[in-house]
Amino acid sequence: MEHIPILRMGDFLLITVQVDMHDRLALNLQEDLTERIITYGSRGVLIDISALDVVDSFIGRMLGNIASMSRILDAQTVVTGMRPAVAITLVELGLSLPGIRTALTVERGMEILRREIDASSFAVVEEDDQGEEPHDANV
Amino acid sequence: MEHIPILRMGDFLLITVQVDMHDRLALNLQEDLTERIITYGSRGVLIDISALDVVDSFIGRMLGNIASMSRILDAQTVVTGMRPAVAITLVELGLSLPGIRTALTVERGMEILRREIDASSFAVVEEDDQGEEPHDANV
Repeated sequence: MEHIPILRMGDFLLITVQVDMHDRLALNLQEDLTERIITYGSRGVLIDISALDVVDSFIGRMLGNIASMSRILDAQTVVTGMRPAVAITLVELGLSLPGIRTALTVERGMEILRREIDASSFAVVEEDDQGEEPHDANV
Repeated sequence: MEHIPILRMGDFLLITVQVDMHDRLALNLQEDLTERIITYGSRGVLIDISALDVVDSFIGRMLGNIASMSRILDAQTVVTGMRPAVAITLVELGLSLPGIRTALTVERGMEILRREIDASSFAVVEEDDQGEEPHDANV
């Protein structure tokens, strides 16, 4: 298999990592994902790693890269289903996944994304309001 | 990997098949899935096979088994993301997946499940009403 499937769920994209990552697969995933984010205008990416018993620094870095790319494209990333052993390994490898949100289940991950997106659109509206105030005063 | 992850999404369970199925994995999936349907009281099962380029009679039978088991447990099954080559192979193998609904994407699959569940709960309500009519007449 050369591509990990990316499922569209409304505003979000869902990826379940089930197989060992190798270079080609990881590169394809990054390409496919960034393309989909733009095509669908997705606001969030959920990466479920509950099938992974172990991780190495390669997967850790890949998760970080995906999160950074998504952020640049205005999409939030949540990693879900991390096993205890995986959390231990990631920290021992010095990869504490800065800037990546985590959730125990995909459902909770979706809640986090919905809240984040609501909060960020609210913030934009507030900024817009402030920006328009002097304009209103002139009218 | 010995287990395919099963993700809970509200009333539904989502499985993305990405790896070649072998006996042990298929048996584990059936066990895990039936257990989850009961634990979570799930009403629908979505099986995404968009990662599969080819299928054999083993996978075809497994899909049929999962659908039958789910139906007995009062959950509907929708298979999503089937590739053209897979559809051709399944029919050539004589496996036309009777009783299994299919959808092009997970999103459409979810819509089908929601409609089915709404319709079936409506049917139950109607039956209840009819059943109660003579009872009301006596009062």
